[in-house]
Amino acid sequence: MPKIYFDNNATTRLDASVFEEMLPFLRDNYGNPSSLHSFGREARRALDNARAHVANLIGAEPGEIVFTSGGTEADNQAIIGTVDIIGKPGGRIITSAVEHQAVLNSCQHLQNKGYRTTLLPVDREGRIKLADLDKALDNDAVLVSIMYANNETGSIQPVEEAASIAKSRGILFHCDGVQAAGRLPIDVRKLGVDLFSLSSHKINGPKGSGALFVRRGILAPVLIHGGHHEQRRRAGTENVASIVGFGEACRLAKQRLDETARNCATLRDRLEKRIIEEVQPAVLNSCRGICLPNTLNVSFPGVDGQFLAINLDLMGIAVSTGSACHAESREPSYVLKAMGRSDDEASSCIRFSLGRENTIEEVDAVVLALKELVRSLRAT
Amino acid sequence: MPKIYFDNNATTRLDASVFEEMLPFLRDNYGNPSSLHSFGREARRALDNARAHVANLIGAEPGEIVFTSGGTEADNQAIIGTVDIIGKPGGRIITSAVEHQAVLNSCQHLQNKGYRTTLLPVDREGRIKLADLDKALDNDAVLVSIMYANNETGSIQPVEEAASIAKSRGILFHCDGVQAAGRLPIDVRKLGVDLFSLSSHKINGPKGSGALFVRRGILAPVLIHGGHHEQRRRAGTENVASIVGFGEACRLAKQRLDETARNCATLRDRLEKRIIEEVQPAVLNSCRGICLPNTLNVSFPGVDGQFLAINLDLMGIAVSTGSACHAESREPSYVLKAMGRSDDEASSCIRFSLGRENTIEEVDAVVLALKELVRSLRAT
Repeated sequence: MPKIYFDNNATTRLDASVFEEMLPFLRDNYGNPSSLHSFGREARRALDNARAHVANLIGAEPGEIVFTSGGTEADNQAIIGTVDIIGKPGGRIITSAVEHQAVLNSCQHLQNKGYRTTLLPVDREGRIKLADLDKALDNDAVLVSIMYANNETGSIQPVEEAASIAKSRGILFHCDGVQAAGRLPIDVRKLGVDLFSLSSHKINGPKGSGALFVRRGILAPVLIHGGHHEQRRRAGTENVASIVGFGEACRLAKQRLDETARNCATLRDRLEKRIIEEVQPAVLNSCRGICLPNTLNVSFPGVDGQFLAINLDLMGIAVSTGSACHAESREPSYVLKAMGRSDDEASSCIRFSLGRENTIEEVDAVVLALKELVRSLRAT
Repeated sequence: MPKIYFDNNATTRLDASVFEEMLPFLRDNYGNPSSLHSFGREARRALDNARAHVANLIGAEPGEIVFTSGGTEADNQAIIGTVDIIGKPGGRIITSAVEHQAVLNSCQHLQNKGYRTTLLPVDREGRIKLADLDKALDNDAVLVSIMYANNETGSIQPVEEAASIAKSRGILFHCDGVQAAGRLPIDVRKLGVDLFSLSSHKINGPKGSGALFVRRGILAPVLIHGGHHEQRRRAGTENVASIVGFGEACRLAKQRLDETARNCATLRDRLEKRIIEEVQPAVLNSCRGICLPNTLNVSFPGVDGQFLAINLDLMGIAVSTGSACHAESREPSYVLKAMGRSDDEASSCIRFSLGRENTIEEVDAVVLALKELVRSLRAT
């Protein structure tokens, strides 16, 4: 049986058309976009083109897009760079307890330097309460950072409302949109965010590219210093081929947004329904309706999630127990713990994250494998 | 006539064999190296393999190699990350006046935060004096950062001696080796450096990858915070294909080191000789013997270097006036100014940087074009 890949929140397969677009920039068009000669200008044009596609995906202007090496760098740049600019010693960053480690550890780094962090709690669906945010915005607040959709559970935060609260208090708002951009319709103007992080490899683009949306009018945060690249907002020779691929991935994602979301949701709903009916007891950690269409997180109490994932892998099925970026840790998921799950529930979870290539046959094969495995693991 | 590319210090053509190695990781092997399943483990093995090749190029252990998005990030990580760890307010970084902007602007960033920088002057050959370094190492010194070879002139610094002086005073030593690694034999043990930056795309590898050598035993500097990647020394999903390409580029560079250096030097020497003889007056800014074998920097007094480069470009010849990372600036090269060149000399320079694909016929074609152009530009 061919392998089944249900781990699209970790990374995705490069789209064939994205690969085709990258190819010339891996072969003959190898110029440095900063060079003034024809080799350089060709690369520069490709960057401009990609920038327009990325901007278009989220309703931004091309000049508001800063290319980075990925979502993690974008998050670091947004948080560390912004705090650097504001330079308010002892200032406070308000974020949530379920953010990606790129956000949490950027905050931790700043905390070591004397800044403070408030981690907003979340409810059982993984969402912050707006009243908590409102309360946390004291005079020391310098930045709010709330993710759009959680990588482990898919839970979608009330970003528009949260950004509006921050705005009313004059506080900058960053949104980690790595799992959302290209999967859900995003309009940064409507959201009212100042900073928004994107990643290429989560939407069938290549690894090594991401972007930070920096709203026109705010001082651009900088993390990597050096040459004049990206209008002095991010130094380092641009990863042209990867950026070109990212641009094409954004173009495709925008074009296919509804279709991909619909297909993923159909598969996800079937997976959820069959698991609930056939692999009892199972605790849902993703809440339909306020969740990414492709993500399903389920706990199988009494079963070790890691062990279950390894056994699924032996059967050719790739899933994860949570964030790939946290996979080496044997701690129960901090995201699920923050959502009020018990240690057992948080240690027995599996994240299924679907992609545009997955099929109904794969869903049924996964359910079959799960049923057998969970039964036998529970019997031991 | 096919185009001639003499701008290999800006970036290089991807080697065909590097491309072949990358291909599987752009197509079917798309796993996230942090994932525990088979897709992830395959990517992880590829990273390990690449890490061994990079380490081998510079005489390091694989565990001492931290992959970054490129040379600029590696420089930032070495400098900002180290100062972060040492955390000595008002501490001093000692560097040289001719460093790449990735180093100088990292220092500038720290200066804005209360740290201090000493820029060591250089002689007419672009080299620091060891006595100056010795004198600059006061009690506040926290880091020395001296490049191996200059990107504009190719000048090679006395790194081993400088590192030894820093070591005798207990000060950490970083070397920006971006232009040197893969072009000259480098042994980080023999050099005695603590930190060493590398770039992939300068040695026929892909853009988007670089590395920081972090000597075992020192606290690893961190710039990008988040997941557990690179043993917590650099967060963010690894750019697998690019890293694989970087590894292969290092393997090839090591294998071909002598041959490439010899060929480049032969071409460079011919270019130098013919320019000196046939395009008078010309001022050499690169000093044979203490220079990268591929780099020749010449000033053509009375001629605007930028204008000359543009006209060469129109004839299908790609050269630069200096750093691509600084190309948008119309200021005379700060490197040449630091080397005691006049404004006119610093504004009339051309950097020829050769690569392993260049030929003697190309050298002769470039000389012919130069002769015509310089004569006609001087006549106007």
